Amino acid sequence: MKFKYHNPVRLVFSAGALSRLGEFASQYGQRALLVTGGGSVKRNGTFDRALKSLIDAGIPVFACEGVEPNPRITSVKRGAATARENACDLVIALGGGSVMDAAKVIAAAVLYDGDPWDMIIHGQPEPHIPAQALPLITVPTLAATGSEMNCGAVISNEATQEKSFVSTECLYPKVALLDPELTVSVPKDQTAYGVCDLITHITESYFNGTGDTPIQDRFAESVILTAMEYGPKAIANGSDLNARSQVQWAATVALNGWVQSGAGGVGYPVHMIEHTVSAFHDITHAAGLAIINPAWMRFAAKTSTPKFTQFAERIFGLAAKGSGDLDCALAGIDCFEAFLKSIGCPVRFSDLGIDDRLVETYAKETLRIIHDENGLLPARPPMTEADIVGVLRAAL
Amino acid sequence: MKFKYHNPVRLVFSAGALSRLGEFASQYGQRALLVTGGGSVKRNGTFDRALKSLIDAGIPVFACEGVEPNPRITSVKRGAATARENACDLVIALGGGSVMDAAKVIAAAVLYDGDPWDMIIHGQPEPHIPAQALPLITVPTLAATGSEMNCGAVISNEATQEKSFVSTECLYPKVALLDPELTVSVPKDQTAYGVCDLITHITESYFNGTGDTPIQDRFAESVILTAMEYGPKAIANGSDLNARSQVQWAATVALNGWVQSGAGGVGYPVHMIEHTVSAFHDITHAAGLAIINPAWMRFAAKTSTPKFTQFAERIFGLAAKGSGDLDCALAGIDCFEAFLKSIGCPVRFSDLGIDDRLVETYAKETLRIIHDENGLLPARPPMTEADIVGVLRAAL
Repeated sequence: MKFKYHNPVRLVFSAGALSRLGEFASQYGQRALLVTGGGSVKRNGTFDRALKSLIDAGIPVFACEGVEPNPRITSVKRGAATARENACDLVIALGGGSVMDAAKVIAAAVLYDGDPWDMIIHGQPEPHIPAQALPLITVPTLAATGSEMNCGAVISNEATQEKSFVSTECLYPKVALLDPELTVSVPKDQTAYGVCDLITHITESYFNGTGDTPIQDRFAESVILTAMEYGPKAIANGSDLNARSQVQWAATVALNGWVQSGAGGVGYPVHMIEHTVSAFHDITHAAGLAIINPAWMRFAAKTSTPKFTQFAERIFGLAAKGSGDLDCALAGIDCFEAFLKSIGCPVRFSDLGIDDRLVETYAKETLRIIHDENGLLPARPPMTEADIVGVLRAAL
Repeated sequence: MKFKYHNPVRLVFSAGALSRLGEFASQYGQRALLVTGGGSVKRNGTFDRALKSLIDAGIPVFACEGVEPNPRITSVKRGAATARENACDLVIALGGGSVMDAAKVIAAAVLYDGDPWDMIIHGQPEPHIPAQALPLITVPTLAATGSEMNCGAVISNEATQEKSFVSTECLYPKVALLDPELTVSVPKDQTAYGVCDLITHITESYFNGTGDTPIQDRFAESVILTAMEYGPKAIANGSDLNARSQVQWAATVALNGWVQSGAGGVGYPVHMIEHTVSAFHDITHAAGLAIINPAWMRFAAKTSTPKFTQFAERIFGLAAKGSGDLDCALAGIDCFEAFLKSIGCPVRFSDLGIDDRLVETYAKETLRIIHDENGLLPARPPMTEADIVGVLRAAL
């Protein structure tokens, strides 16, 4: 094992914590840009509660509303302009992964004179990775992306049909305020997508790691087992606060580095392929993951059979005939796909009305955005264009 | 679940990382106090390598050598005096848990004009919890206490026969440099004690938690299973670098908050009792833990049967007849005690030549140092003086 780890985010996890937003905000800034999404936080009163807490703490609030799913660079520019015009010195994200990701890049864009799209790694020769950003507080209203406690963001460019990421130290939030009560009103489908998203974060590092990482493996399995136990409970009964809490904690630890540190993951192939597909079709991120992940697993299981066998044994209790039991490995993937289907996720592109017309294009575009020195998609095993096309076709 | 988490330590984990000590040190200070223990780092060349790296980086080094196991407040005072006399602005701990703990309190004592013993919580009405400390870099040479990545320290006062702790934000190291090569020369008995120590950190939070913490439980079990798998390998073959690496990572995550966050632990009863016993007898900390922990478990299993049954099932693969199966719970504890014995730990006070003469004194003293509002030792269940005496007698 050889790795570095640093995550300075202050985490506060408590039902009702939203009422303390002003208290935390006042430690980091005096004028806040409040970034929100499509309106659910307004309809369910969360926005007003956040606003009250901030105003009670003496913090003027300037709104950047309407950040879309698959957040766009145009929203980032709009948010940064609002923050500049109003001399905001603090950014607060109140919403799901899209809102938090947009808020991160806004926080950096405010301090960057160039085009914010320069900061997103999208195949350009020299990305402008930001070195500074305004302080950020995340208040997730959805348990899914884990963006609340990491330094990554994924942004789309509608004009160029690109979707890609940036991940760097200055984008760590100062505070992540996790209030599971805020997730109680999330509808069943979005709850299921959140569960799929968080599990996929885990499977990416689990199956693309170096091996010889027993703690990381078991941590990963811990999160998957918990998400599979409490996810369906949260979907069945949205007001089950304990189930909501477990799913929210699972989502946060799925991508805050605790599981990944030392695992030596060589890539996030399922995410990279999904980003391209959703850049073309604007589908829900986790719906794309639910479709691509099992197909990718069946591809990777042929070379990483022992890890997939371990997954089948430890997650689904299947009995393997040794670590090279590909049948057992594939049976585990079938169980996983069946789980995704059982919670209401699509598992084929046809479920979303996407056909085979652009599969070569998705594959080429994925490799254009990210590839290793041999021109392959970083993964275990590294993927050629034909491999990606094969996975996509298997998921039609 | 209701909790806060913040751990800003920068972790570097890599075989050979010691050679980068100077590089990291130069980011935090210009004149270093280098704190070490009884001499093994001098004998095996680690001290010279650290010194070379620091001198190559242009950092003058002032030594505080000879910090003893169960580090004493007199060593803290001596180290702080050396740091002051030489205007050190950085403290580096190169050693095991005792060295790291002493270094933490030295880093705070340099900036405190009073008696450093004021900073250790030992039953005084108003402890002086430090709010500032010099920057600290930890370089553990032993996988055991996890002190490298947390903000706690345990210090003994020989004059008053007290041993107690302080835990506060400013004592977080800036950097924890984990180089598993440094642990290769640790002798078998110390390796075994490290394994016992780290597992006991886990069992304390696991068995004294709130329940309804599925991720925390599985994370805890992940660390125990890994320590039980790789600990014996590291003991059998000290130069097995992979086993050393796994044990070192297990020790760090056993007490950096990843397992404990949200678990709602109400106390560290085994540690608290052990601290008192070793204040009187200066025994190796983990030897005391190995003796007291199984005895405490048998006491607690009567009220926390479901958790102990889960432990028996998930760690030792025993089959329980329902969650209230006390026989299964007790059988799991027997297996755990057998494991400790198998790696060479003592499991009875008689193994160390300690008899029953002072058991009432240990119990009274434990409660004097820490108790809840009802005068009980914080634990699940809270312990009376008679309970503590009972546990100690069962361990004779």
